Amino acid sequence: MSRTPVFALTPGEPAGIGPDLCLLLACDAQPAALVAIASRTLLADRATQLGLQIELLDVPPGQWPSQPAAAGSLYVWDTPLAEPVVAGQLDVANAGYVLQTLTRAAEGCMTGDFAGMITAPVHKGVINQAGIAFSGHTEFLADLTQTPQVVMMLATEGLRVALVTTHLPLKDIAAAITEERLIRVTRILAHDLRSKFGIAQPRILVCGLNPHAGEGGHLGREEIEIIEPTLARLREEGIDLIGPLPADTLFTPKHLEHCDAVLAMYHDQGLPVLKYKGFGAAVNITLGLPIIRTSVDHGTALDLAGSGNVDSGSLKVALHTAYAMAASQQPAH
Amino acid sequence: MSRTPVFALTPGEPAGIGPDLCLLLACDAQPAALVAIASRTLLADRATQLGLQIELLDVPPGQWPSQPAAAGSLYVWDTPLAEPVVAGQLDVANAGYVLQTLTRAAEGCMTGDFAGMITAPVHKGVINQAGIAFSGHTEFLADLTQTPQVVMMLATEGLRVALVTTHLPLKDIAAAITEERLIRVTRILAHDLRSKFGIAQPRILVCGLNPHAGEGGHLGREEIEIIEPTLARLREEGIDLIGPLPADTLFTPKHLEHCDAVLAMYHDQGLPVLKYKGFGAAVNITLGLPIIRTSVDHGTALDLAGSGNVDSGSLKVALHTAYAMAASQQPAH
Repeated sequence: MSRTPVFALTPGEPAGIGPDLCLLLACDAQPAALVAIASRTLLADRATQLGLQIELLDVPPGQWPSQPAAAGSLYVWDTPLAEPVVAGQLDVANAGYVLQTLTRAAEGCMTGDFAGMITAPVHKGVINQAGIAFSGHTEFLADLTQTPQVVMMLATEGLRVALVTTHLPLKDIAAAITEERLIRVTRILAHDLRSKFGIAQPRILVCGLNPHAGEGGHLGREEIEIIEPTLARLREEGIDLIGPLPADTLFTPKHLEHCDAVLAMYHDQGLPVLKYKGFGAAVNITLGLPIIRTSVDHGTALDLAGSGNVDSGSLKVALHTAYAMAASQQPAH
Repeated sequence: MSRTPVFALTPGEPAGIGPDLCLLLACDAQPAALVAIASRTLLADRATQLGLQIELLDVPPGQWPSQPAAAGSLYVWDTPLAEPVVAGQLDVANAGYVLQTLTRAAEGCMTGDFAGMITAPVHKGVINQAGIAFSGHTEFLADLTQTPQVVMMLATEGLRVALVTTHLPLKDIAAAITEERLIRVTRILAHDLRSKFGIAQPRILVCGLNPHAGEGGHLGREEIEIIEPTLARLREEGIDLIGPLPADTLFTPKHLEHCDAVLAMYHDQGLPVLKYKGFGAAVNITLGLPIIRTSVDHGTALDLAGSGNVDSGSLKVALHTAYAMAASQQPAH
């Protein structure tokens, strides 16, 4: 019998809802061994605040569990805070703690101790206020794993949307849609759909950049000058690409039925539909990394931390997506 | 008893699916008198091709019907073609015909003969090929009614989305988001929600321009420098505005529940969600005109003309929206 896969779970910003979500998840049995990389004290305090009876099972590094925890219990790799946490109150002193939990998770994935990592939200602002340049999980993990290009993909039941550009001001997007970037992103998307999702021949729908995909050049020429020739080149590599299509007609059943992912040119072209469709049940997946990493699709919601009024739907989808990805990557014998 | 309102219906491009849709609609009884402004021969031929038994009732201008037509019949203001039509085959010779049907409908609305006009799709390309500069229904009707600014709004059950910019290349959008344009568009939207939709105090959700609505200036400064101060100014006029909000979280039940319309900054920010939600049942409404005008949200689908394989869902919604708008504008005594 092969060893049960172990997954790392990082609760993220300690003053946010991440710890709450992890504790809520631990109320139910998980199909895999899940190790929260966090302060044991933080989790115990938050459980008390929420009135949850969760047994915290200490897991020293290297002595990973051989089976999933029972419902009502959670494995914890204790990672000490710098300062005690009050739910809802950011503290720059704990910025280093947050990054340490991420580093432990990612390094464990790199060594093979963990089959993947699932992240709850961090607060970019407080980490930067602590004097640590930090633009997000994705970039942090790309640096740590020395990955030159990653691709952000969001998914919900029945729809996956990957982005060519992510967090750019709108005015800078058109210039960022280059042949080079489009090739790198599309190759990673096609590769990871095969290798991490077990899709033998993924079909990808590609949005145009301009409204109506440029309408034959009348509403912009990037489709004609950049996107179409680049897609033609990528098709020669055997990647199954449809498009460029107008974004406002692409997201309809006729087109979506026979595709495995949509490649949108920018954030607000692709994500409003995805989050509308998958409200409360969408997952953020970082493609291109040498490890499996999934994340919730929402923020720290400081005002809700400790309130009990939180929805763990997105974290559930993030967990199950990571489990499924690991299973696709390592098929059972 | 007041006279029954009469609405004008323009089937648009004669080689497209517009005539088919009008004939399909005539199979059912309409709650208002509906006059198709089109070639009688075209409609008769297309009905034969489709195997539909529709009685075409000639209506000379000025002698408008006093009651709705029965199911299976359609009032027609005969407007002759220049050349006979073959379904699916564009002919530049009929470009003038198409514009004449629009002109008759719009002028009838201006004189009060018609309570509103509903348009099936035209083909911009063939009209331009005929040597007539034409960038769309909306611009044509704005010119004809001497309206300096119109606003494009799409609607489906439970969601209305208006656009600050419409058919611009993506690279030109940021520069087009000016205080002046935002004020003009928002005023028209608020005004028409009151006057044409009967909403006493409309609440409008406004999208940011940049991803995450700029995230405090980190992802673009237009929210801080232009959008926020302009919304503050408009609020002082009594317009109920929420935002700017990130587009990828705005289109979720929590935000949409208590709003009457969303104002998106550009085409592909707002319309993919709307068309996803309202697939096959969305209507395009031109705000700011002195007349009521609604339209289907799709194109001419030349390949489907005469096939019988068409979905009249969007035209149905366009008709019922026009009826409802006219009723809101002219409350019964």
